[in-house]
Amino acid sequence: MGGDAAPGEIVAGAVAAARDLQVTIRLVGLTSIVAAELARVAGASVPANISILDAAQVIGMDEAPLAALRRKPRASIKVAAEAVLRGEADALYSAGHTGATLMAAHAALGMLPGAERPALAILVPTLTGQTVLLDTGATMDCRPEHLRSFGVMGAAFARIALQVDAPRVGLLSVGEEAAKGNELVREAHGLLLTTRGITFVGNIEARDLFAGHADVVVCDGFTGNIVLKTGEGLVATLETMLRREVGQSMASRIANWLVGREFQRLKVRMDAGERGGAPLLGVNGVAVIGHGRSDARAIRNGIAATVRLVEGRMVKRLREALSNEPMSQ
Amino acid sequence: MGGDAAPGEIVAGAVAAARDLQVTIRLVGLTSIVAAELARVAGASVPANISILDAAQVIGMDEAPLAALRRKPRASIKVAAEAVLRGEADALYSAGHTGATLMAAHAALGMLPGAERPALAILVPTLTGQTVLLDTGATMDCRPEHLRSFGVMGAAFARIALQVDAPRVGLLSVGEEAAKGNELVREAHGLLLTTRGITFVGNIEARDLFAGHADVVVCDGFTGNIVLKTGEGLVATLETMLRREVGQSMASRIANWLVGREFQRLKVRMDAGERGGAPLLGVNGVAVIGHGRSDARAIRNGIAATVRLVEGRMVKRLREALSNEPMSQ
Repeated sequence: MGGDAAPGEIVAGAVAAARDLQVTIRLVGLTSIVAAELARVAGASVPANISILDAAQVIGMDEAPLAALRRKPRASIKVAAEAVLRGEADALYSAGHTGATLMAAHAALGMLPGAERPALAILVPTLTGQTVLLDTGATMDCRPEHLRSFGVMGAAFARIALQVDAPRVGLLSVGEEAAKGNELVREAHGLLLTTRGITFVGNIEARDLFAGHADVVVCDGFTGNIVLKTGEGLVATLETMLRREVGQSMASRIANWLVGREFQRLKVRMDAGERGGAPLLGVNGVAVIGHGRSDARAIRNGIAATVRLVEGRMVKRLREALSNEPMSQ
Repeated sequence: MGGDAAPGEIVAGAVAAARDLQVTIRLVGLTSIVAAELARVAGASVPANISILDAAQVIGMDEAPLAALRRKPRASIKVAAEAVLRGEADALYSAGHTGATLMAAHAALGMLPGAERPALAILVPTLTGQTVLLDTGATMDCRPEHLRSFGVMGAAFARIALQVDAPRVGLLSVGEEAAKGNELVREAHGLLLTTRGITFVGNIEARDLFAGHADVVVCDGFTGNIVLKTGEGLVATLETMLRREVGQSMASRIANWLVGREFQRLKVRMDAGERGGAPLLGVNGVAVIGHGRSDARAIRNGIAATVRLVEGRMVKRLREALSNEPMSQ
């Protein structure tokens, strides 16, 4: 029910995933609406591995999540999270209200031992591949030990998502030196230096985030969200500026077309929606949050990415990684 | 003496400024080195409005600023700041060590009443013009009342730099709603709402930073620096990615050339060095910090921007704006 293009694109993406992948999908929402959409998208050939789990209520994108979850005990996101808790589903995927998804998953599944706070991990494209950036919006105010657990969890996630054996973990800051940064970062630097089981490569400057100097970069959720949104805004703005400038010269229609095409490709790499979703690390279960603007393709990709996390036994790996490290010194 | 291309580019930029502008320039540094550079750049025709103020010591780009300033009482940046204090100069401009410049200016000039912490203000290009972003690195850990004073000072600076009568002041956050953000931002939102003398337009999402929805956007120095460096890194990365992609197709040499040319133009608009420098707001004097990578043109532009701040009587305006608003409630 959630997302800017729900339920149409969500259902279409789910049908595509059900057809493409070895997966069983339960669409959680108002049965009448979801069934009608399913009939519209798939007609008579609804895949056998897709079904509906009824939920009588919906949390709108504008609602305050905590109050909405209390007011609506049968909200689709809550019903979906509880299906994971009861083992009726292996994972939760949502392109709906980020805050509500986060809180519903947290409330239903609880946290892994050693993970005090959840973190949304995003794959950022770099010149050499991809970097895991976390947290990008789950925990706005962090303490140093939270950043340490993000490093541990980010490394475990990177092993699955990036298939690297010993992920290099960096700390986002305003300079490479350990003394650079705000109080949070300076203290977290010290903790990460002494954290067993990860390869800490020190501070990463925001300027170098896209250079691929680290496989995992940790920061608090406020900073990570600002970085992500700055990137999104800048890519869109640069395209507009570039097209405007290029358009001013004569023989530049081809260039304009090329620029448009290439920016489209770049946006596919940069855009959160196209990446299919961000796993919520730290909760005791697989929960993936898709971009609100996700279209059917993004939803399909998001479901595929979620399946990979289940098959990669991410929660087990996170639990093991967190138990390696006593979180309170 | 400071900056990646010092003293060559610094002296060349100063000579250009001395020739172009109604300004008297004192180059502060080791006389022997600066004089040699001046002779090399200007030969026999050193402008009459340029001279040398001797300083026997230099703070290197890698030194810890506080310790270096204590160890080197005759450091060029300290001598320059003290010249402003004594009224021997109307303003300080440096492309050297940012932290040392900041501390030297702070120590020599002190703070304006009501400005508890300094803020570096940067002009960010937008689709409709420019936005003042502050703080971009002077105060890493802020309290809500600091963000409020940044709003007041940013508005006063925007009146001079952007020539707008009633600058719209926004607060950088992760969502438009007042309840979105970290603790600092949520509290600052409340303070800015009740601040007299400014037009507070609420939270600005990082995604909309380049859309021109506000003339001034405030944030803590850590976040602002991350935004700035993310932008710099992304522009460089996008150019590389775009050239790489464009280069793969046949008839795309023209496009590649165009892309290169246009990115150059964009970088001129985006790059901190090209903008000439960031004023350090809150100190009791005009102090402008140029990008370490500044070339002669950036130095010349930075001196021109500094002259405009002196002529616009920025410090007087800041003092008036801050006195309008009791900073402790």
